[in-house]
Amino acid sequence: MKINLERLEKNLKELSQFGRNEEGGIDRSLGSEAEEEARNWLLEKALDMGAAIKIDAMANIWINWKTTNCDNRPITLGSHHDAVPDGGMYDGALGVLIGLEIMQTLKENRVPLKHPLQVVSFTAEEPNPFNISTMGSRGVTGKLTLEQLQASRHLITGESLTAALKRAGGNVQGLLKAQLGKNDMAAFLECHIEQGRNLYDSQLSVGTVAKITGIYREFVTVIGEANHAGTTLMSHRHDAFLAAAQAALAVEETAKALKRRDVVATVGWFEVSPNSANIISGNTKFIMEFRFPGEPVKQQLLQRIDKEFYGIENNRGICFHREVILDQAPAPMDEGIKKIIGEEISKEQAPLSPAAEESSGLEFIDHVPMLVSMAGHDAVHMSGITKTGMIFVQSIEGKSHCREEKTNSKDIEIAGNVLLNAVLRLDKELTHENLN
Amino acid sequence: MKINLERLEKNLKELSQFGRNEEGGIDRSLGSEAEEEARNWLLEKALDMGAAIKIDAMANIWINWKTTNCDNRPITLGSHHDAVPDGGMYDGALGVLIGLEIMQTLKENRVPLKHPLQVVSFTAEEPNPFNISTMGSRGVTGKLTLEQLQASRHLITGESLTAALKRAGGNVQGLLKAQLGKNDMAAFLECHIEQGRNLYDSQLSVGTVAKITGIYREFVTVIGEANHAGTTLMSHRHDAFLAAAQAALAVEETAKALKRRDVVATVGWFEVSPNSANIISGNTKFIMEFRFPGEPVKQQLLQRIDKEFYGIENNRGICFHREVILDQAPAPMDEGIKKIIGEEISKEQAPLSPAAEESSGLEFIDHVPMLVSMAGHDAVHMSGITKTGMIFVQSIEGKSHCREEKTNSKDIEIAGNVLLNAVLRLDKELTHENLN
Repeated sequence: MKINLERLEKNLKELSQFGRNEEGGIDRSLGSEAEEEARNWLLEKALDMGAAIKIDAMANIWINWKTTNCDNRPITLGSHHDAVPDGGMYDGALGVLIGLEIMQTLKENRVPLKHPLQVVSFTAEEPNPFNISTMGSRGVTGKLTLEQLQASRHLITGESLTAALKRAGGNVQGLLKAQLGKNDMAAFLECHIEQGRNLYDSQLSVGTVAKITGIYREFVTVIGEANHAGTTLMSHRHDAFLAAAQAALAVEETAKALKRRDVVATVGWFEVSPNSANIISGNTKFIMEFRFPGEPVKQQLLQRIDKEFYGIENNRGICFHREVILDQAPAPMDEGIKKIIGEEISKEQAPLSPAAEESSGLEFIDHVPMLVSMAGHDAVHMSGITKTGMIFVQSIEGKSHCREEKTNSKDIEIAGNVLLNAVLRLDKELTHENLN
Repeated sequence: MKINLERLEKNLKELSQFGRNEEGGIDRSLGSEAEEEARNWLLEKALDMGAAIKIDAMANIWINWKTTNCDNRPITLGSHHDAVPDGGMYDGALGVLIGLEIMQTLKENRVPLKHPLQVVSFTAEEPNPFNISTMGSRGVTGKLTLEQLQASRHLITGESLTAALKRAGGNVQGLLKAQLGKNDMAAFLECHIEQGRNLYDSQLSVGTVAKITGIYREFVTVIGEANHAGTTLMSHRHDAFLAAAQAALAVEETAKALKRRDVVATVGWFEVSPNSANIISGNTKFIMEFRFPGEPVKQQLLQRIDKEFYGIENNRGICFHREVILDQAPAPMDEGIKKIIGEEISKEQAPLSPAAEESSGLEFIDHVPMLVSMAGHDAVHMSGITKTGMIFVQSIEGKSHCREEKTNSKDIEIAGNVLLNAVLRLDKELTHENLN
């Protein structure tokens, strides 16, 4: 039994028309007409298949198919259908449509599953104008409050999130009732493009995700002394901007020194005050971000940063005020699911040579790459309520969040068949006993 | 003959009430009610003295007094009456009011001058919401176009500059007619607080200004590659922000390496794009500013900067686009006036010990400090049309552009008497012959 690649690619193409802009990118964020059209298209597809549909409080779309009348919990496949501005056609869409394709393949082949099969398309996974990303998966796993949802408005149109979700079929008042518990799902599997170039650099089609990166962010305020840019001698300055610039370079250096593929550090947001060509900055703020595979690495980074920042403070007579604004632990994927996906991958994908494995910088188990996802995903939140696994598919040149995003047909096909077989194995191997 | 310190300080105090805010600072920029009140107060003072008043196209206030019916050109004293936001009571105001005090002293003593005496208070010298500083002096010395003036609007209120100048008694249509030629003035003298700590550090009251600093500014655009902050390996980044941070630190280092009191470099304006915590910056812009005493020093700075920037480009795979937006040559003060002010200073101010002179880092001629003004002044523009000189008065701790700005009475008195005697000498020594 194989998935139907032609049908899957036809669906990918159809869905990609919603929000397609003149340059070929896709604009499809929550609140837009294109997002609504994409939803309607998905619902029609599901109805055509004869599946049952549920739209929850967060406007997540749940597509259900059940072959037997057992009371097992569902095995769920899915991802999201929204896109970043000017984004590509694979990020999110591939995970949802590969789920639908697997459902359709199993249905056509009349495979009797012991578990109901479910496909989910989450609401607003990407950074969006309502400023809550992974919104749908966070909402149903108890990580958002009603107050948060009710306070949010579209940055440009001003529409309330409440109204936008209502238009999409949701209902924020039902947030609590929609929350999933530990007994609501047997497993969650997400297929996603890698958004990095590990698979591309090694010319591999797919890999198992071992864990999803931890993310740590500090909001740093540098307090110096604003002064006249002409009359203040170089030796009398307490330039908050230069101190912040030096700190950002130290952050970069700290991450680079570890020489790890699963550690990155970024200062992407930076604001100088008073920001005038002829005034020495008295106050500069920035957000420092680390992504890391585990607590010991995070501590190692922070220890060095503490030391570097302390040195800058002493040297320049300025002061750093640091506030932790995000400290999200890495999310390890379920061991059992990782193993199943790994085994299914090794049946579909030819191994690299030992030399190529060695030089790739990746970790392999039985020749299957065990990747760390450096981006966040809906699977992070789902991993808190059910056994969760992810499979990554090669994205050419590692491109994502841009219109040039592209994944080859052969890689999509391998991912689809791996996932199809993983579902069959999970259906067989998951029992009430081994679920807890 | 001496100035009346008590009267001068009373006037300083009266003028400082216009725009005084709750914290004790002064808000008095062009367009504000306080600026209008300050103008009206000045005009009343002048009328009380029996002086003639002229308000020109740029709303500069000219106060004239003539003892004889000769056709000599006027000797002009002055500065400006506007203030930076939350500024102090000496910057600008001292130069205008010391001028008025000298006029009044000479008038009371019925001193017959061969030259008409004139006090000017220039419009909008400070950085202001219309975004044209030294506006009044630039306007009357032919450095602004009608188009520039007509295009400018108040950043907050939106009022056109045309309307604001009209309210102040000006008329932009008269710009060309108001422009001063090389034969319109015998000399211009400006007294100003130092806005630096050279005099304060050496505990001197006053100094002659030898020249006003050159200012060079480049608008630099750094073009890198925007990318995902999670999935882009440290070694694959072309971070425009980090390149700009490194460039700014190189600019600082370059200026510091010269170890000169008359060279400073500043990056005060800096803008990161897209400026998002989870996106590596693809584009960062900044303004780099140097202040320098002469062309060779400027070239020395630029040569090293070129080399540093080139190194960063190669290292990070980014690109600097550099545009010169200001290249204002240093303005040397008139030799004759410098000499007269210097001689008058040496009569009023005790010399430092040779050791103190040596360790001050300043240049002295006959024990009189020859200062480089590191800030721009109306005198820069006046030096293009007439013999121009400046005297600096100590500002405690070098403070300026802040409410803590303070100058001691004894220093004000010395400055006033030096300038009074300089006017008397100029009146005697300036003839038609030595003016060209």
